Amino acid sequence: MSKLALLGGAKAIGEEGRALKANWPNIGLEAALCDYTGAKYAKCVSAGTAALISGLFAAGCGPGDEVITVAYTWVATVGAVLRVNAVPIFADIDPRTFCIDPEDVKRKISPATKAILAVDYYGHPAPIPELMAIAEEHGLVLIEDACQASTSEINGQKVGNLAHFTAFSWSGKPIYSGSGGGAFLTSDRHLYERALLAGQHPTVIQGLATDPDVLKYASMGGTGDNMRAVGTDAMAQLMDAEVRTDARIRNCDYLTEKLSAIPGITPPYVRPGYKHVYHYYNCLWDATPWGFSRDTLCSALNAEGIFAVAYLKDANFNFAPESKPIEAGGPIHMRTIFQERNLYGKGCPFLCPHVANPPVYSEGDLPVSEEMWKREFAFFQPDLSPPCDERDMQLIVDAVHKVLDNADALKQWEQERASQ
Amino acid sequence: MSKLALLGGAKAIGEEGRALKANWPNIGLEAALCDYTGAKYAKCVSAGTAALISGLFAAGCGPGDEVITVAYTWVATVGAVLRVNAVPIFADIDPRTFCIDPEDVKRKISPATKAILAVDYYGHPAPIPELMAIAEEHGLVLIEDACQASTSEINGQKVGNLAHFTAFSWSGKPIYSGSGGGAFLTSDRHLYERALLAGQHPTVIQGLATDPDVLKYASMGGTGDNMRAVGTDAMAQLMDAEVRTDARIRNCDYLTEKLSAIPGITPPYVRPGYKHVYHYYNCLWDATPWGFSRDTLCSALNAEGIFAVAYLKDANFNFAPESKPIEAGGPIHMRTIFQERNLYGKGCPFLCPHVANPPVYSEGDLPVSEEMWKREFAFFQPDLSPPCDERDMQLIVDAVHKVLDNADALKQWEQERASQ
Repeated sequence: MSKLALLGGAKAIGEEGRALKANWPNIGLEAALCDYTGAKYAKCVSAGTAALISGLFAAGCGPGDEVITVAYTWVATVGAVLRVNAVPIFADIDPRTFCIDPEDVKRKISPATKAILAVDYYGHPAPIPELMAIAEEHGLVLIEDACQASTSEINGQKVGNLAHFTAFSWSGKPIYSGSGGGAFLTSDRHLYERALLAGQHPTVIQGLATDPDVLKYASMGGTGDNMRAVGTDAMAQLMDAEVRTDARIRNCDYLTEKLSAIPGITPPYVRPGYKHVYHYYNCLWDATPWGFSRDTLCSALNAEGIFAVAYLKDANFNFAPESKPIEAGGPIHMRTIFQERNLYGKGCPFLCPHVANPPVYSEGDLPVSEEMWKREFAFFQPDLSPPCDERDMQLIVDAVHKVLDNADALKQWEQERASQ
Repeated sequence: MSKLALLGGAKAIGEEGRALKANWPNIGLEAALCDYTGAKYAKCVSAGTAALISGLFAAGCGPGDEVITVAYTWVATVGAVLRVNAVPIFADIDPRTFCIDPEDVKRKISPATKAILAVDYYGHPAPIPELMAIAEEHGLVLIEDACQASTSEINGQKVGNLAHFTAFSWSGKPIYSGSGGGAFLTSDRHLYERALLAGQHPTVIQGLATDPDVLKYASMGGTGDNMRAVGTDAMAQLMDAEVRTDARIRNCDYLTEKLSAIPGITPPYVRPGYKHVYHYYNCLWDATPWGFSRDTLCSALNAEGIFAVAYLKDANFNFAPESKPIEAGGPIHMRTIFQERNLYGKGCPFLCPHVANPPVYSEGDLPVSEEMWKREFAFFQPDLSPPCDERDMQLIVDAVHKVLDNADALKQWEQERASQ
């Protein structure tokens, strides 16, 4: 018989019962995020973009500095690098996970490199352990863009406390708020305090910072931007995050089991030890067995009532499904800003006099990225999450079969459209 | 007898009946703002700061460019200039209105000047007609920071369509939302479309822009920042803006009548033809007749239950009344960032190689600004607005008299604190 805690014995609810001890609604979203991820510090901000900018600013990235990141991502990742006047240097991706390739990161490191900005694309964590080893070896800051992966894990450890600094987003993401918003997380006090200077109100900086080298800028609010927190109602989603994510994973496992058997479709790969939370369920299409394109496949599935998207090509679906696709989709390095290198005037930041080796962005730089975006198609989180269950997944599988059963008709449809 | 409109006659409700024709809740906040101000275009954004940044970006302000603005303002005005990598050049203010002095603007124009950023401080419009004449003569863009003045007027014309580009804010302002947020307004199509590139989602740019030189950047979301609209519930306040503002003006007129008679207190000046909407009711204190300082006056009034603040000294009250004042208050040019000129690394933007004449910011640069901030004290909008009425204003007047009747005790209180 164990001795009662009341009488001086060990508590029945010890460290293992963390969830029993937390009362998240009462401690607020920032404290709850720390509790959930294990990170020491969390700050809610106006968007995932704001969290990324905060991290890059905290890492000291500025004019003439290089940040190694991917061209295979939502624009905010790379936009954040431009926003702090640093130069994005693109590494290619692992064709299995769509995430940054650590071997290519190593090749891209130069004396100007200051940070690595990795993306947990579609909800599959980037190879953080390998990247942390590289970052530590070269004295770089590793920032994890976990905007699509706010409930995922590597080897049982929650994303949010794996890299030096992590960005979360609530806008349509695994932890959701209809108002948008996001947060940054870190266990590094210096990065936490510096990050406040990227766009917090003077009173926020004043209240949270302790470092005199940070406080001396408080009266200006740091860089003077305004990244005031929105979407803190994401708390409600955080409380259900585990059960919702795990149910989605079960649904996706079902999809994978069924779709694996179909020629021409490669379901998502999940690296051993990694928890893929399927913000997107991303497949690769091989037209060879069927004779029609990825875009025709998506059009046919959409017509059947299944939302299927080629994310890097048509990433505008999320807010304006009725609008025409953005013409210049594809990997980021091929878009206009990177070809002109002059959006900000006088070549800033690409051709800044502080840049030792002005970057040149060309088609062919990133063979894997440039191939993958033409073949990927994905199902989106809301269709994969509760209340959707196995029966709904079977409807998706049935729709795919219906489309493929009509391959000849689709070939003809495609040819007719091409000749118009 | 007029001919019925039904039978082809003129409408009874013509152009003069604009308010009768608008159905604001149905047309949305942006259209309602256009209707209210007469501006052709309005876009809701994440904050007044975001609106300012959007305007400066639209005006093409970037590395090496100078923006003439004031040091007598909330930090966001100047932070926005830094945010686009331009250099703030400070003009002094008119000691009557606390707004930028057009004569000093003329003196500060250089070949590098690209824009004038004027602030409607405390709700009194800046001298926009004079500034527009200067801007037109020199080919500059005039941006009006109307964040504190979103219901004011000059010569019967609403702020929002007076300068080339106008920024509104909803955060604690005359048109209010508890979520923060703001909007930019302009009647210049080029500025409107370019402003979208400062931080709108690709789909927003894609949906609203028509200029190929803007659309070519849409897929990156322009500079890649995220200024998604928040606080569009400000609509409810816009619908009541006139009645609320006019009631506040009546209250403030009452205060002015009563306080004018008191030695040592100069109530706000209102320039003829200008509508001061009293976001703050800002007075000047002269210690001579009473023998105690402005700060002691504020402490005494606060203790009596009247919120009185020295805005430029203690502008942190708004969000964290319990926190200690920010030490480095005062005009912006005296704060750390402008003394160090290196927040962004490598001297950016102040010492950028594209800057022809690196600025030096020194005490003594702006004699009026540097004098005024030591003497100003203000009452704040919520205490001056409905449901507060003349009786509440009389309570303020009574409290001021009570404090001044005890001048000797306050002199002693001040001396005791000074010797501690």
